[in-house]
Amino acid sequence: MALEDAFDDFTHRDWVQETVDGTVRLAVVGIGGFARNRALPGIAAGRYCETTALVTGSPDRARTIAGEFDVEHVIGYDAFRAGNHAETYDAVYVATPNSTHGEYAIAAAEHGKHVLCEKPLETTVDRAEEIVDACSDNGVTLMTAYRLQTEPVVRRTREFVRDGVIGEVVQVHGGFAHPLLDHAGPDTWRLDPDLAGGGALVDLGVYPLNTTRYVLDCDPTAVYATTRSNGGPFADVDEHVAFQLEFPTGATASCTASFDAHASSQLELVGTDGKIAISSPFGGVVPQDIVVESGEMRTEYTGPPVDEVCEEFDYFGYCVLTGADPEPDGADGVADLRAIEAAYESAETERRVALE
Amino acid sequence: MALEDAFDDFTHRDWVQETVDGTVRLAVVGIGGFARNRALPGIAAGRYCETTALVTGSPDRARTIAGEFDVEHVIGYDAFRAGNHAETYDAVYVATPNSTHGEYAIAAAEHGKHVLCEKPLETTVDRAEEIVDACSDNGVTLMTAYRLQTEPVVRRTREFVRDGVIGEVVQVHGGFAHPLLDHAGPDTWRLDPDLAGGGALVDLGVYPLNTTRYVLDCDPTAVYATTRSNGGPFADVDEHVAFQLEFPTGATASCTASFDAHASSQLELVGTDGKIAISSPFGGVVPQDIVVESGEMRTEYTGPPVDEVCEEFDYFGYCVLTGADPEPDGADGVADLRAIEAAYESAETERRVALE
Repeated sequence: MALEDAFDDFTHRDWVQETVDGTVRLAVVGIGGFARNRALPGIAAGRYCETTALVTGSPDRARTIAGEFDVEHVIGYDAFRAGNHAETYDAVYVATPNSTHGEYAIAAAEHGKHVLCEKPLETTVDRAEEIVDACSDNGVTLMTAYRLQTEPVVRRTREFVRDGVIGEVVQVHGGFAHPLLDHAGPDTWRLDPDLAGGGALVDLGVYPLNTTRYVLDCDPTAVYATTRSNGGPFADVDEHVAFQLEFPTGATASCTASFDAHASSQLELVGTDGKIAISSPFGGVVPQDIVVESGEMRTEYTGPPVDEVCEEFDYFGYCVLTGADPEPDGADGVADLRAIEAAYESAETERRVALE
Repeated sequence: MALEDAFDDFTHRDWVQETVDGTVRLAVVGIGGFARNRALPGIAAGRYCETTALVTGSPDRARTIAGEFDVEHVIGYDAFRAGNHAETYDAVYVATPNSTHGEYAIAAAEHGKHVLCEKPLETTVDRAEEIVDACSDNGVTLMTAYRLQTEPVVRRTREFVRDGVIGEVVQVHGGFAHPLLDHAGPDTWRLDPDLAGGGALVDLGVYPLNTTRYVLDCDPTAVYATTRSNGGPFADVDEHVAFQLEFPTGATASCTASFDAHASSQLELVGTDGKIAISSPFGGVVPQDIVVESGEMRTEYTGPPVDEVCEEFDYFGYCVLTGADPEPDGADGVADLRAIEAAYESAETERRVALE
């Protein structure tokens, strides 16, 4: 592939292979800030999904939001688990606290509904595998909501890497800092290890982790991690984490995440014959700025922004409608949890932890 | 400090405190590519040093270079060690293979000559400490040649950090890749562990290591490292290294270095209230591009380039002439070797290694 061709049609949906009609009717389970501010508008802006139900513990608040987004049904959690009103939706988007993903995803699968589940898939490998099994047993599609995998700048980066534009990847640097308490109170479930399964690593570190795995198209063989907390609201979780991954190709990834630092993110890959640097890849609104160096050639590209959340829901809807297997499937979500569990073990033991 | 003031006079030599006359007469010991292409022109362009002697094992080649740079004396290594022609210089710049730094630096100190010694100071902590002791015993100035410490963009970064422009530093990413065999044959001493003391970590990793220590103004308390070699010309040393440092402030630094990847370097500091990213800080010709985010403010600055090697020699000359202690002193060089030894131990044992 010539570099210039890649930039010609940077945001094209390479995953669309056929024309499909209809939409997937979605129940959005859990109406937190991300669901309201990003997911519901993203679904509304897209083509292959529509929100037909909100599942919530706060029916009054949900009814206001339902009005705003023209959603017909508001369902309580108990009714949802019981399968009441299941005829109003074809699939669910689970956006509840991490430790409840299994409960809702498995209930949905048992009612024959396809599942798009927020990352991390659950709080442990075992619990995540229960989701995978339930979806498999019930013959429904399971996608882990890694929005970065439908982000054009990340998809193009994977293509560059696959096509050898930067040679063999040698070293990756990835970081994601997001000052949690600027956007949430200290009682947020993200700071409760039982509900969240961990701290900055689980919530933010999973972005450089998953994106690096996706771009390199392989899983880490070992991890080392250092976690740190200054106490206070962060007393029970990792406020900051630095971790280093080894891949079977020999590449390493040096990653960081922080709940309590200036909002910023970065991803840079250095290969034997070039490098790729993406500006602010993880913050949710990606500027599509990418620098690609290949041999003597250097290209800086700033693409038209896309709504990656809209891309994500449309990708899920397209997969459900066509019966395609989503790339960020359940196994993908489990692989990250395996790395996360190993990273926490490493932080505890101060040793490199090998992964199967 | 207001950010805009810092950019007003970005390249000023803040280390010049008084007017001094005269120059330091330098013997350049070891005439490799860096000495010829960067050091001799840098000294010639500067104000406080002049090259009066070349010390070499290849007198014919040295005479050509001496002619080119108008250097009066060419001295053989044996004669140099014996102190012959010591009256022709006041100080030495040692740019020989790493494991010979001690031999020449100590000989110079014993002849009462000040020493500017290339990094790493030697191949082990013990050998480096012998240099420190010899210079101390003989009352001569010792500077480790960390050119980055006289690089304006790095000095300004340290000032920003000191002044709290980005709050407390939380996480650093630093990397330096330089394809060695594009510039040297496979028989280069840099690939001989006895002469070099190690591979990419020693030769390149020392840049993000030292620069991070300098900017944070403290020493690491622990290190973890992974090294890798694909064999061939790199069989005996680390071709690639990824290492993670912990600092007493709680900050971490995620660093990489490679002898066999696309030429690139980066340094990024994320703090509680901002971030600083320097483009291509380590490659020797620094574009003076820096992005500083402080709270809501973002500044991108591209300064006039300076010759950082000229800065380095002038800084050394100024210190010798005024009797000032150079900041990159012998202890600074020893501290890096301590971290490097611990990193190699970590790579061997697959464990975090604590530093005293």
